[in-house]
Amino acid sequence: MAEEEATDSRERIMDATYRALIENGYADLTMSDIAEKSETSTSLLHYHFDTKEDLLVAFLEHVLDRLQDDFAEAAGRDPTTRLCELLRLYVLDPSEVEREAFHVALVELRSQAPYNERYRDRFRRADEVLIDELADILRAGLEDGVFVGEFDPERVAMLLIASTDGARTRGIALGDPIYTRDVLDVLFEEVLEPIFAAAAIERWQELMGE
Amino acid sequence: MAEEEATDSRERIMDATYRALIENGYADLTMSDIAEKSETSTSLLHYHFDTKEDLLVAFLEHVLDRLQDDFAEAAGRDPTTRLCELLRLYVLDPSEVEREAFHVALVELRSQAPYNERYRDRFRRADEVLIDELADILRAGLEDGVFVGEFDPERVAMLLIASTDGARTRGIALGDPIYTRDVLDVLFEEVLEPIFAAAAIERWQELMGE
Repeated sequence: MAEEEATDSRERIMDATYRALIENGYADLTMSDIAEKSETSTSLLHYHFDTKEDLLVAFLEHVLDRLQDDFAEAAGRDPTTRLCELLRLYVLDPSEVEREAFHVALVELRSQAPYNERYRDRFRRADEVLIDELADILRAGLEDGVFVGEFDPERVAMLLIASTDGARTRGIALGDPIYTRDVLDVLFEEVLEPIFAAAAIERWQELMGE
Repeated sequence: MAEEEATDSRERIMDATYRALIENGYADLTMSDIAEKSETSTSLLHYHFDTKEDLLVAFLEHVLDRLQDDFAEAAGRDPTTRLCELLRLYVLDPSEVEREAFHVALVELRSQAPYNERYRDRFRRADEVLIDELADILRAGLEDGVFVGEFDPERVAMLLIASTDGARTRGIALGDPIYTRDVLDVLFEEVLEPIFAAAAIERWQELMGE
């Protein structure tokens, strides 16, 4: 029972951190703000997390756990769908105000990684998970014959993540959320279409047209 | 004479801002630090710039001016060299500690653009200048016959900037400065080699091997 309560209160704190990041960004985030949003006393919050840094490290791990759960769930599906859905994580629709605000805060938090080893370590792990997942999708597609041609899955995975993540980061800085969608279309034309079999091209266009 | 002195002191302040950003990053930058580094009194610094924000806006314009000067100087050269040199602006060599620190601070400053319209406006202009320059290079290469095949210069320019800038930003966050160099190699294999004529391929490999 005590364990269950601890899990509940941790979950509430993670959720409150998410909402506080959306509202205030990273630099203006305060522990008392998160305590209030999670309906937790500041002393109980400090019982779980000594500092704002500790809390954000736990939050980054929480986000990564959720991402890994999503990847595990998608593992059985066709490679084109998995690839499209992964890259669309970086596409921000102008109507998704809350999601955009969260990405703004994540980019801000990541800009602190060079100054903070613990943040850097978590972003590194996230990068490894993303590259591994992408390379795994590309390998699965090669085995299934939906992706064709000679390419190195790890290397193409690096390019895919650099360009979609880069487009998101630029789009956020420039206040132009559809930027990523445009770059993803060019990425399809220049990089993916040449290595996609006909079925993959059709599936991609179907998913992107949705 | 008075005008010359004002230009001198402005130049000194811009240089001091650069050095202060390298040492302290953006969040910890102070006006008194810049006054000290530029051997200017704090009151004279405030005569030029009311706030830290004003100073950084002027600094971003200063950086963009220098970039445009570089582009103007390169205009007559062969398209492959121009393209390679532009994209290499994003490549950080592990030995270039100072340059890396400057990029870290720039990424940090850019992460504030969503919260600050004046920064955002300058980053937007920089983006336009970069995309225009890249598209101009690609068009020049098509005219000269060193780039071949059917592609839209504006769209390919977007992909090139998203992927190299994205690689730089990730490399900085992860503390892995050679990341951009790797991504640039994949970008060559997957995107550039297919649209390069033999002479461009040779020139690129020569420049990248340097």
